[in-house]
Amino acid sequence: MREIYLDYAAATPVSDSVMHEMMPYFTERFYNPSAPYACARSVKTDLDNARKRVASVLGTRPANITFTAGATEANNLALASSEGRILVSAIEHDSIMAPARQRNYSVLAVDKCGHVSVDEVKRRLDDTVELVSIALANGEIGTIQPLRKISKLVQEERMRRLTAGSRIPLFFHTDASQAAGAVSVRPASLGVDLMTLSASKIYGPKQVGLLWHADGVSLHPLIAGGGQELGLRSGTENVAGIMGFARALEEAEKLRGFEVRRLRMLSLRLRKALESEISDILFSGPTNVEHRLPGLVHVSIKGVEARRLVIALESCHVSVGTGSACAASKMRVSETLRAIGLDREWATGSLRISMGRDTTNEDVDTAAALIIQCVADERARLSSRGGRNG
Amino acid sequence: MREIYLDYAAATPVSDSVMHEMMPYFTERFYNPSAPYACARSVKTDLDNARKRVASVLGTRPANITFTAGATEANNLALASSEGRILVSAIEHDSIMAPARQRNYSVLAVDKCGHVSVDEVKRRLDDTVELVSIALANGEIGTIQPLRKISKLVQEERMRRLTAGSRIPLFFHTDASQAAGAVSVRPASLGVDLMTLSASKIYGPKQVGLLWHADGVSLHPLIAGGGQELGLRSGTENVAGIMGFARALEEAEKLRGFEVRRLRMLSLRLRKALESEISDILFSGPTNVEHRLPGLVHVSIKGVEARRLVIALESCHVSVGTGSACAASKMRVSETLRAIGLDREWATGSLRISMGRDTTNEDVDTAAALIIQCVADERARLSSRGGRNG
Repeated sequence: MREIYLDYAAATPVSDSVMHEMMPYFTERFYNPSAPYACARSVKTDLDNARKRVASVLGTRPANITFTAGATEANNLALASSEGRILVSAIEHDSIMAPARQRNYSVLAVDKCGHVSVDEVKRRLDDTVELVSIALANGEIGTIQPLRKISKLVQEERMRRLTAGSRIPLFFHTDASQAAGAVSVRPASLGVDLMTLSASKIYGPKQVGLLWHADGVSLHPLIAGGGQELGLRSGTENVAGIMGFARALEEAEKLRGFEVRRLRMLSLRLRKALESEISDILFSGPTNVEHRLPGLVHVSIKGVEARRLVIALESCHVSVGTGSACAASKMRVSETLRAIGLDREWATGSLRISMGRDTTNEDVDTAAALIIQCVADERARLSSRGGRNG
Repeated sequence: MREIYLDYAAATPVSDSVMHEMMPYFTERFYNPSAPYACARSVKTDLDNARKRVASVLGTRPANITFTAGATEANNLALASSEGRILVSAIEHDSIMAPARQRNYSVLAVDKCGHVSVDEVKRRLDDTVELVSIALANGEIGTIQPLRKISKLVQEERMRRLTAGSRIPLFFHTDASQAAGAVSVRPASLGVDLMTLSASKIYGPKQVGLLWHADGVSLHPLIAGGGQELGLRSGTENVAGIMGFARALEEAEKLRGFEVRRLRMLSLRLRKALESEISDILFSGPTNVEHRLPGLVHVSIKGVEARRLVIALESCHVSVGTGSACAASKMRVSETLRAIGLDREWATGSLRISMGRDTTNEDVDTAAALIIQCVADERARLSSRGGRNG
């Protein structure tokens, strides 16, 4: 029986070509890139080339890329670049919210599709704000934010401060971890000053990420020591991981156009199958396909507990998520669903179904049929229990 | 031509069994351990088991082990456990010195073998010190510290404070990264409250480490987010890396007795070969084999530049280090050699030769012959140049 995995937003397998790229650096090319002899210097060259390859995809200078142990670390590093007040959207990941909560921050409300409006940013962007952090794409409901429009506001405020003689800096950060592979992640096009990426969301290894920063942004290292990564992230480099990350990013960019079209069709197919057979069903996130992650379907089914559905589906060899994995493990109500105004009775019945490179039409059809069956079974169970109780 | 690698203190290749343990977690078992469905929960179980396996080697409780992205991060995390004054030895790694320098710290002098004396600790351990950090084994000259004796002093001071009604805490940290595989790394035997380990020094992957902490020590996370590692290190876990680390530690412990004896003989063989043929030669670190890393030989050759030797040797397919790789890449004079009082004319001619599991008698004989030849060539070159100049 084929296992149908539909939680690519939580984790992706390492692709064959990424694995192939990583392998030598565990074994025959295991050298410490800071060591002085030829074979170690050659590994250092490979590492420098990986940075250049990543920079080429991002359209940036290699020296402005800091490799980190994952996107969470990169997000923490981005927020540590400023000590002043931060604006974050109401649907940011915990790795933004947790460090934000340790300091002066304000939250940007989102609409029912999860979009931060330009007006909301305008209202909140007063002259005390030093950093704005908004994820390019939300990992739970798939909303892609209008970063360019927000960037224009940030630039206007920066200009205003300059003219007014204010020396308070203002930078714009985006966590593009969930977006890579689905939309362009070139900082210049997005209009951001800092950008986080994760290897583990694009078929690369876990706990490998990066933070890109524009000239003029001062990063303050979270981890000090041997001075690797130009002093911004000490510790012997995860050479295999970085090599794999470079390959994963190249591959994600190469496959992007094709995969986006394919995943949009799969999402539509899934959505149609579910809404034709399940009553009291609701899809969250933007309706315009251009404004949402192509492979992510967030569906809420009234009166049914998502946790029970996950268990019922796993016994049929179908794995679906219920939101961000870290939040899910704590079994708390999703902040994202609260922020878009989803009622609790809908929120508790929410599945995040996210498709990826290995997902086929047949997988979608099988999964849809099983979800429909499980919902029907669960509703029958509840109504018979209701009958007994009544 | 066989490549002879003699810098195991800088990096070790990932062993076959570690590689074998890691592989599934990149591909078929790639799931996010925080996700709610069965296959992800099963990966979570493997991760929990890895923590138990590590705890079993260390003789500790699993819950007191925090996996980090490398020893540098673990050392930083250890130092962040206290805000008060720190005592560090004069020969600590940069990942201790760099965070120490950002706050109130004092340095414990070492003797010419690199040992911190109990008297020195007694002198410095006043009632303002909150943390003492001394590496179990030094990675440059191989000195193993008398931690138990120092621990006794720390405990006495702790008792004194308790009696005096002082509420200033005092903890003892050791970076045991270089020591693992050569000496026991059970915190209870060492008498420490915090201990750092690194996978990449024991034939495991790079940028995987851990910090063990005793009950009563409060760790303050450097990286916040999804709350992984009991909230002490957020970010989706490096599952493959942690699985590999568990295996690497088990293997290092299993091979320890055998490898220590073998490496001691190899070191002796190398030392004898070098000192019989090279005049004006000096070995640093303790002479007592019990007090030094078994596979590490630190040798200084008067009047010869180590950097030139490294280059000459690499063209003969022999790789040797010149000290800690991170420090070496900055081409600065080693703090460790300064601390043990080695004159500059000796220090600049210093090689760190470190052997490992794949090193054979033949490797040592070949390397020794080549080092002797390179030193002779270099001295001849210098003396002919001196002749021409004179």
